[in-house]
Amino acid sequence: MQIAILLFDGITALDAVGPYEVLSRVPEAQVVFVSTEPGPKRTSNQVLALVADRSLTEVASPDVVLIPGGSGSRALVRDEAVLAWIRQAHTTSRWTTSVCTGARVLGAAGVLRGLEATTHWLSLDELADYGARPVQRRVVEQGKVITAAGVSAGIDMALLLAAREAGEDVARSIQLSIEYDPQPPFDSGSPLTAAPAIVELARTRAQVAAGRPA
Amino acid sequence: MQIAILLFDGITALDAVGPYEVLSRVPEAQVVFVSTEPGPKRTSNQVLALVADRSLTEVASPDVVLIPGGSGSRALVRDEAVLAWIRQAHTTSRWTTSVCTGARVLGAAGVLRGLEATTHWLSLDELADYGARPVQRRVVEQGKVITAAGVSAGIDMALLLAAREAGEDVARSIQLSIEYDPQPPFDSGSPLTAAPAIVELARTRAQVAAGRPA
Repeated sequence: MQIAILLFDGITALDAVGPYEVLSRVPEAQVVFVSTEPGPKRTSNQVLALVADRSLTEVASPDVVLIPGGSGSRALVRDEAVLAWIRQAHTTSRWTTSVCTGARVLGAAGVLRGLEATTHWLSLDELADYGARPVQRRVVEQGKVITAAGVSAGIDMALLLAAREAGEDVARSIQLSIEYDPQPPFDSGSPLTAAPAIVELARTRAQVAAGRPA
Repeated sequence: MQIAILLFDGITALDAVGPYEVLSRVPEAQVVFVSTEPGPKRTSNQVLALVADRSLTEVASPDVVLIPGGSGSRALVRDEAVLAWIRQAHTTSRWTTSVCTGARVLGAAGVLRGLEATTHWLSLDELADYGARPVQRRVVEQGKVITAAGVSAGIDMALLLAAREAGEDVARSIQLSIEYDPQPPFDSGSPLTAAPAIVELARTRAQVAAGRPA
């Protein structure tokens, strides 16, 4: 099973690395990091580069397509090479998936039309522009299309995918091998549980980080 | 606040990227990926390279030292350049931390002597070799030394650190910005909760992955 994870400048690293850490442990799975041009791709804060080893044309029909998010995904919705690759790969994939704002790229490729889908809570409304029905849920499975919520949600999605492909016992053993027994010190991981003041703080900080007026 | 995350060949990517995703959002924090020699460092499965931008000598006195784990950490316990850097940085750091088997490197540097500490559950006993008292807990804080359990535990540790440095409200807003509202589909993330058969499966798979007889 070949799993292609798209890299691009402006990626959110955990969107890609969370699922990678799970899916690379699925028996017989081969994870490959792909990009329009191979080479290092930087996060939007410029702090970390992840290396794409293969071009999109070298990995034309992966079994799993995984599109991470990040501010760079805004440019991808107008990147015809990426959109054409997604459309083509989606015709033969077993699973076509996104994490966080990677959903907008699936949307721009037409993959989400008529489907329920999710993304980072700050971008949820945008999915309607692509004909999807936005839902505030951690992981949304619609046939072979799976979308996950913001950043860390890709880990949960990947465990689901591991169970679908290799069975629940293997998925459970992968969960144990990455010791995914989350104990966040706070309960502020969702706009549904965080206090309103925290939601506003996160919103403001995101706007400042994006260079837009708060 | 300068936060140095060590990269090396044979790293487990999520050990580094989980904390990075949290700590890079702390106001005024500067995260820098360091290595003995700058350049791309591959995971032990060869699937992903993360780029170290700076050498250890360029980042001699970071405020936070963070040592991730991975099979490559076994070589680091005999790497005098890395151990000397840790020892020196520890004399001036605000926090000296590890994720997963990064704890064995802190141990080899002498940082854990006499302290409670944790690491990946499969390597927990080993910490006693370095004079530490191994404890099966997600995050262990001992003064300025913090150790986290396997792989994904670095996210929880980093949120704790963010709260210590920037206050709980900022830490909560970071948790929300990475939408860390974990909903694993199974409850097998700890050897204390996983079924015995799953623990054995994970142990066997780890031995096979390490090339040792099961």
